[in-house]
Amino acid sequence: MGDFKLTSVEEFEAATNRLLETGKKVGADGWQYRVANQTPHCKFGETGICCRICSMGPCRITPKAPRGICGCDAHGIVARNYLRFTAGGAATHSDHGRSICHTLYCTAPDGNYKVKDPEKLIRIAKEWGVETEGKDIYDLAHEVAYLGLSEYGKVFGNQNFLKRAPEHTQELWQREGIAPRAIDREVSCSMHMTHMGCSSKAEALIRQSLRAGLSDGWGGSMAGTEFSDVLFGTPKPIDTEANLGVMNADNVNIVVHGHDPALSEMICEYADSPEMIAYAKEMGAKGITISGVCCTSNEVAMRRGIPMAGNFLQQENVILTGACEAIVVDVQCIFPALGPLAKCFHTKFVTTSEIAQMPESDYIRFEPENAGENAKAIVKLAIENFKNRKPELVHIPDMKQKATVGYSFEAIVKTLDTVTNSQVDETGTTKPLIDCVKSGVIRGAVAMVGCNNPKIRPDTAHIELMKKLIANDIIIVASGCAAQAAAKAGLMDKAAKDLCGAGLKRVCELADIPPVLHMGSCVDISRMMILVAELAKDSGWKISELPVVGCAPEWMSEKAVSIGNYVVATGIDTFLGVDPYISGSDQVYKLLTEGVREWVEAAYTIETDIDKLVDRMIDRIEEKRDALGI
Amino acid sequence: MGDFKLTSVEEFEAATNRLLETGKKVGADGWQYRVANQTPHCKFGETGICCRICSMGPCRITPKAPRGICGCDAHGIVARNYLRFTAGGAATHSDHGRSICHTLYCTAPDGNYKVKDPEKLIRIAKEWGVETEGKDIYDLAHEVAYLGLSEYGKVFGNQNFLKRAPEHTQELWQREGIAPRAIDREVSCSMHMTHMGCSSKAEALIRQSLRAGLSDGWGGSMAGTEFSDVLFGTPKPIDTEANLGVMNADNVNIVVHGHDPALSEMICEYADSPEMIAYAKEMGAKGITISGVCCTSNEVAMRRGIPMAGNFLQQENVILTGACEAIVVDVQCIFPALGPLAKCFHTKFVTTSEIAQMPESDYIRFEPENAGENAKAIVKLAIENFKNRKPELVHIPDMKQKATVGYSFEAIVKTLDTVTNSQVDETGTTKPLIDCVKSGVIRGAVAMVGCNNPKIRPDTAHIELMKKLIANDIIIVASGCAAQAAAKAGLMDKAAKDLCGAGLKRVCELADIPPVLHMGSCVDISRMMILVAELAKDSGWKISELPVVGCAPEWMSEKAVSIGNYVVATGIDTFLGVDPYISGSDQVYKLLTEGVREWVEAAYTIETDIDKLVDRMIDRIEEKRDALGI
Repeated sequence: MGDFKLTSVEEFEAATNRLLETGKKVGADGWQYRVANQTPHCKFGETGICCRICSMGPCRITPKAPRGICGCDAHGIVARNYLRFTAGGAATHSDHGRSICHTLYCTAPDGNYKVKDPEKLIRIAKEWGVETEGKDIYDLAHEVAYLGLSEYGKVFGNQNFLKRAPEHTQELWQREGIAPRAIDREVSCSMHMTHMGCSSKAEALIRQSLRAGLSDGWGGSMAGTEFSDVLFGTPKPIDTEANLGVMNADNVNIVVHGHDPALSEMICEYADSPEMIAYAKEMGAKGITISGVCCTSNEVAMRRGIPMAGNFLQQENVILTGACEAIVVDVQCIFPALGPLAKCFHTKFVTTSEIAQMPESDYIRFEPENAGENAKAIVKLAIENFKNRKPELVHIPDMKQKATVGYSFEAIVKTLDTVTNSQVDETGTTKPLIDCVKSGVIRGAVAMVGCNNPKIRPDTAHIELMKKLIANDIIIVASGCAAQAAAKAGLMDKAAKDLCGAGLKRVCELADIPPVLHMGSCVDISRMMILVAELAKDSGWKISELPVVGCAPEWMSEKAVSIGNYVVATGIDTFLGVDPYISGSDQVYKLLTEGVREWVEAAYTIETDIDKLVDRMIDRIEEKRDALGI
Repeated sequence: MGDFKLTSVEEFEAATNRLLETGKKVGADGWQYRVANQTPHCKFGETGICCRICSMGPCRITPKAPRGICGCDAHGIVARNYLRFTAGGAATHSDHGRSICHTLYCTAPDGNYKVKDPEKLIRIAKEWGVETEGKDIYDLAHEVAYLGLSEYGKVFGNQNFLKRAPEHTQELWQREGIAPRAIDREVSCSMHMTHMGCSSKAEALIRQSLRAGLSDGWGGSMAGTEFSDVLFGTPKPIDTEANLGVMNADNVNIVVHGHDPALSEMICEYADSPEMIAYAKEMGAKGITISGVCCTSNEVAMRRGIPMAGNFLQQENVILTGACEAIVVDVQCIFPALGPLAKCFHTKFVTTSEIAQMPESDYIRFEPENAGENAKAIVKLAIENFKNRKPELVHIPDMKQKATVGYSFEAIVKTLDTVTNSQVDETGTTKPLIDCVKSGVIRGAVAMVGCNNPKIRPDTAHIELMKKLIANDIIIVASGCAAQAAAKAGLMDKAAKDLCGAGLKRVCELADIPPVLHMGSCVDISRMMILVAELAKDSGWKISELPVVGCAPEWMSEKAVSIGNYVVATGIDTFLGVDPYISGSDQVYKLLTEGVREWVEAAYTIETDIDKLVDRMIDRIEEKRDALGI
């Protein structure tokens, strides 16, 4: 359409290289150099056969030393490491969810945090059997928040949200003994099972990996998503922009980074206040630009249209522009490198969470009680730092794309309603989408998620896979850094419909959507779980029968493995582009790529060749269509 | 006295070598060979500077690569690994405690499990503010057990048992922000803090290590101890024996191994039944001998006088005797090597816990509901296996020592009462002990705890340290594999008083105790916490002022680090003989050995030279005496 053109990875890289030139001038380090220093990686670690679980070792498996000192073999070691990796991810996502529950618990009509989506709160309350009639909305918020917090430590029973899954899925979880109990208990239990001299049977460890994953996806992450919506509003389609060009050389630039929206929402609130804007002008700037990195960015993009400066491997770039007055971070995926890097520039590196404390940062501890005051202090700190900018170091790459984001599950259903003939059809369901899939106008869907990882040329896998998939009439739902890759490339511009096959293009036009739908941050993969659950209920198919797969081609964090486990355990085949340190055990590899299918009707595909990866996904979707006879 | 003689480590080794000869005949593997295969260990792992927390790596710190790909330096990596190590230990101990709470929850007057110490139950109930008047003891048990289970996941507040600590200690914990919340939450929080891109500041990570440790020592472990006492009786002094010679070639030998007494108690119960003894005779044996390994052994030794066949690095030896019909395990510190080893003999390797599933074992899942029936099945399995013994492989070393064990806190106080002049003195306190310390008859006390580790010549450190300490009038309280080392050597024989200095010898004679008091399993280090808390309250001194130190000279498991952290955080200087993978960061080393003293009035000493270690402990005790002016 007209002058629409995707931005290429080559262009991303050229921009990065220009920024690295600035870095060189000031003696800045960069991940690119650290990767070179750290390559090649330790083969024992990479294949998962190094064990440091007790202090008799470390032990490493070799042909001459097929067992560790305790006698554990490669399969036990790899599987234990895999479960611990999962536990790290599940704990992390879920603790984020806990923090959101706690923020909800602290809401007050005149407080820092308020209930922005009372309707959603009431819906969840009813779902959980909480009396809502005649109740003050804040009393209800506190009651539901307390129940949410209790999900982390309930003595008996399974996660409340499991009931959202189709009956069949719930039955599988019960049958296989993987229905998660209290969230934190699954983490502790995973740590116990992997302790020296506990489980060394790969099957048992992988089973617990699925359970711990489910405690995240249908527990902590879902709490994170749902209660964030209650607090900050359920996302609706909204226009924004993506890539470093969203920063503005004339303005005070504040970059928010991390995952928990409680901080960034408050920063946005204050940065937008006339008082602060006036103060910025007083200090010589034309205004204030907030932009984001990683999932904090996704959170405020989805709800406020705040532009996305970049994803995981671009976090150093925002400082390298020389125009970042403050990078304000909450939790997760924040390079400890930002401290020393910020010192090479005038940038303030502000850490705010007890969970994520870093050297060489300004630590302003952020809690619901002091959120307003501290957000204001941080915004002021940034404004006052504007004068310290070194103009000769300022260079913001002129590179950005338009993006329409905000596709929560609710927003998707509403969008589907617009293509429904309300005279004949039921509204508020996923049926129009199912009809498209049945008719073949859309062949299926891929959930593209996950991080960047220097092991993959950054963003290439995300973008190339998406391009091929949409050309094959496969719609994409995306989250996390995968979503930002799409947005930076332009795949969330509605004009990207022209890159789609004829069927998907038609759907994009009719529904007025881009072919890649931004569903939010990494905890928001829980939205995707709700979507597939509803698709299954509305279609009468099992989740595992839907022509839907998940894909994390550039993942790097423990959270991604936790996600993978709950996606697979929910019945969705999942494709990974990076090996989760398991190649040292054929038993574990086989379990994850085949064995678990007997338990949960889905499994992993691990394929580091990106071209093959996309073909295998398309094949899988077509197989599923064949099996359904559509 | 008279012919009393300690058994030397050389004698232990000679016995082991003889057993290894048998092993060779049947092609058995052994830890001794695996240690050789695994040596030298990876230096990166050993010094703590290898990071596998995300899949960008693994990263390793070198002079040329001073930061990982994310930018984390050696201090952050070492501290994160240390916190994860702690979290593994805290989760493990505490999950054991949870299991005990659950068993208590399942008690019934006619059930598999009963309340054996109602008095203690009532005491805890009152402490926790539970109404006890007129309540059925089983109703009370269920109510208290539910509260115990709730400690793992309570939404608000700190651990209930913290209130047992002296006011001053509680204040320190609050001041430093290390008073533990829900137990599982501290584990999850530790995993979150150490996730990629969260905390990399050593100080923050070490602080959380103390908090997670405290959630174990004053949370999960204490629950494990206290409710085990309620279920199975609070230990009282009892005579038993230790070392492999406790096995009986004429009898069916069942060895219990692991940590959770719920299994072993039931096995002991059935093995003692006339029906089973008759069955054993029918099968050609003279009877049934139960003996134990590791902490399960300590549990049943403390309460039933069941003999201790050995400690951690002797677990393979019990099978190598050729006379072990079944080794029945619950959780933790069980060599996966036992599976293949048992296959070289007629031995049945029976795993029983969902938490500890191992290849090449007979898995008989043990739960409160089926405990009786399954214990019976296991005992029968062992009896029926007697006939499969290969007489030519049978050799039980003729080596054992007498031991008086069972020194729970309550038992120690009762023992002290016996030396009190009840006409003048208050009974039921630790004051007689304090008087001994004040007068210098006893110089102080050392808590000797922890495992074996092939990095230390097995048992040497335990035994040599104890010998020197008691010769210097320092009394020992011991638990875990350290206690078993003492028992095997003969240091728990009352006759060992002759090895003490004149002061301690006198005390041993007056109180009729051995110089090394067996306080139980590794969760029972919580008994030691209660003891020091009471000593502080009764003396008016701070815990950190008491001439008491902790020592784990041969530790190997994550639990030991968790223990170390709570012992230090309770104000007790702690001496380690094995480095906890921290030598790669001078910052972390300094924090643990000095910095934490500013927070909690105690710190670690890490000293791998055992001779120096003991001298440093004696010096520390004398320094503390000097400071008190005693």
